[in-house]
Amino acid sequence: MNLDAHDSVRPILWRDGALWLIDQRLLPHRNEQVVCRDVGTVAEAIRNMTVRGAPAIGIAAAYGVVLAARDRFDAAPGSWREDIEEDLQTLAGTRPTAVNLFWAINRMRTAIADCTGGPGVRLLEEARAIHEADIADNRRMGQLGAALIETPCAVLTHCNAGSLATGGFGTALGVIRAGYVTDRIRRVYADETRPWLQGARLTAWELLEDRIPVTLVAEGAGAYLMKQGEVGWLIVGSDRIAANGDVANKIGTYGAAIIARHHGVKVMVVAPTSTIDMSTPDGGAIPIETRREEELLALAGQGIAAPGARAWNPVFDVTPAGLVDAIVTEKGVVLAPNATRMAALMKS
Amino acid sequence: MNLDAHDSVRPILWRDGALWLIDQRLLPHRNEQVVCRDVGTVAEAIRNMTVRGAPAIGIAAAYGVVLAARDRFDAAPGSWREDIEEDLQTLAGTRPTAVNLFWAINRMRTAIADCTGGPGVRLLEEARAIHEADIADNRRMGQLGAALIETPCAVLTHCNAGSLATGGFGTALGVIRAGYVTDRIRRVYADETRPWLQGARLTAWELLEDRIPVTLVAEGAGAYLMKQGEVGWLIVGSDRIAANGDVANKIGTYGAAIIARHHGVKVMVVAPTSTIDMSTPDGGAIPIETRREEELLALAGQGIAAPGARAWNPVFDVTPAGLVDAIVTEKGVVLAPNATRMAALMKS
Repeated sequence: MNLDAHDSVRPILWRDGALWLIDQRLLPHRNEQVVCRDVGTVAEAIRNMTVRGAPAIGIAAAYGVVLAARDRFDAAPGSWREDIEEDLQTLAGTRPTAVNLFWAINRMRTAIADCTGGPGVRLLEEARAIHEADIADNRRMGQLGAALIETPCAVLTHCNAGSLATGGFGTALGVIRAGYVTDRIRRVYADETRPWLQGARLTAWELLEDRIPVTLVAEGAGAYLMKQGEVGWLIVGSDRIAANGDVANKIGTYGAAIIARHHGVKVMVVAPTSTIDMSTPDGGAIPIETRREEELLALAGQGIAAPGARAWNPVFDVTPAGLVDAIVTEKGVVLAPNATRMAALMKS
Repeated sequence: MNLDAHDSVRPILWRDGALWLIDQRLLPHRNEQVVCRDVGTVAEAIRNMTVRGAPAIGIAAAYGVVLAARDRFDAAPGSWREDIEEDLQTLAGTRPTAVNLFWAINRMRTAIADCTGGPGVRLLEEARAIHEADIADNRRMGQLGAALIETPCAVLTHCNAGSLATGGFGTALGVIRAGYVTDRIRRVYADETRPWLQGARLTAWELLEDRIPVTLVAEGAGAYLMKQGEVGWLIVGSDRIAANGDVANKIGTYGAAIIARHHGVKVMVVAPTSTIDMSTPDGGAIPIETRREEELLALAGQGIAAPGARAWNPVFDVTPAGLVDAIVTEKGVVLAPNATRMAALMKS
């Protein structure tokens, strides 16, 4: 496998003046794109999880700002830079946990302030820069993370932190791609990741596109799997990392990290520095999104639970820094993360 | 709620010379019964999970022996007690983990040896005795287990250890029924329990039949739930308890117990002594059943995973005795179980 050739999955594309998103709700059975020609469509695509994954949400929002600027400038060339603030708020209100969303919006807000006259190509250049840097950062993190795996082993991943969750290549799956091709990773296990089945639907799909074999397990099987001794690392992405190194990620990550520690399995979190929120002191300050009960009670419109049953559906949790062995960013690796080491990374 | 009136769910019935089983594969959407008129149908019903749950499997097998004896005696009155051994082997080969199956078959084998001439009513009396004692034992365990909950709290249960898994009333759900009606249990959370969704389909259904509200969670949400501080106990059943107190139960139990210990949540295992296998020294000697990948890759015949993905589907795991705070049996409660205390219980 030639990793440089990896481009089988392009979740986000800018083409013909519009944003094209793979509709991740339909994968793996249908690979269709949603075309967003205005910011409202982009916001809805983030909200309804047409596009998901913290870095991908940020990139999509950046392109959404490009679309908003075009429409706002057309409508009122004299006040578009004030008027667009409403669109930025709309984008910021789509999902609460992934900080890359707010990071990208703030970058675009700064670029807007730089614009004299209309948006011209300045905003599109900024969105493209965010997108391209994300892919380059993922490749860098892939190398750094894979290098941490000293003894060839199996790894377990949770949710989807792959091409589909980023601009391309992936964070956790970037490490897994780089580790697999260099024989550091012998076998890939993936949690199916209830309720949205990101592991079964998305992670399995994109690894198989790259001809990397993957074995799915139910989250409940994670402890028994780790007990077998084959798994050396739990490798995950993140939606927000607090200043002290606490990690918000897909629901189930926290439990998997507790179970990993119990078995001496190491925990690697792979995320660009755009995921690190130094203004959030610790995980307790990270807003955790709760989604509709129906995501748990039904599957593809088919009820699976007893009628009348309620459900609690938090979709993220927080893994304390103390359970994390390494945070891998494009700027470098933080081992045994804490507030001091995170601050040192961000100043580097 | 009058607990004595609880008989809304009768998973196993002997009627008109046949065994009637609720088809648990169809719940909660359809409540239909399968009629077993011969031992082969009973064996297949155990194998394909028409009936499941360790005590229920044992009871169904006992009635299966009654049907086998009738047919063997009709076919060869002189040798039926030898001929039936083949049927006992067939029943014993259906599922490997739940020891109640082998326990019930052995009890029936002893009863067969007691028969002079034909089976007469002796075997049916024995099967009925096993069935009725199971229900009585569950009610006793319900009282004993509920009494352990000193501070009113929420509880979390895994899989289905209820009426459907037993002769009636349930083991873990028996404690939950008894605890709810006496206000020791304020709220019931149930893991949906992938891949077979026993929690979403069966536990939720039978608790709602008894008007006990239930909130479903994905297994991945267990750690975040326990972090909230509301849950005081994890309450589960068991398929086999080894002589040292190690507990085999539905996949996911081991991880939930690790997570419970991490949060100071206590772990209660509720099982009749027919689940305790003193000939198995520890959990490592318990055979763990692995079932078809398709149980994980598809749901109700609908593929959910990326085509080409493999799955690993062990359906039980072992929780070491050290993670268990209490084993509740009809003979009494074992706190902090170990080999000495388990032996003392079984000799009492």
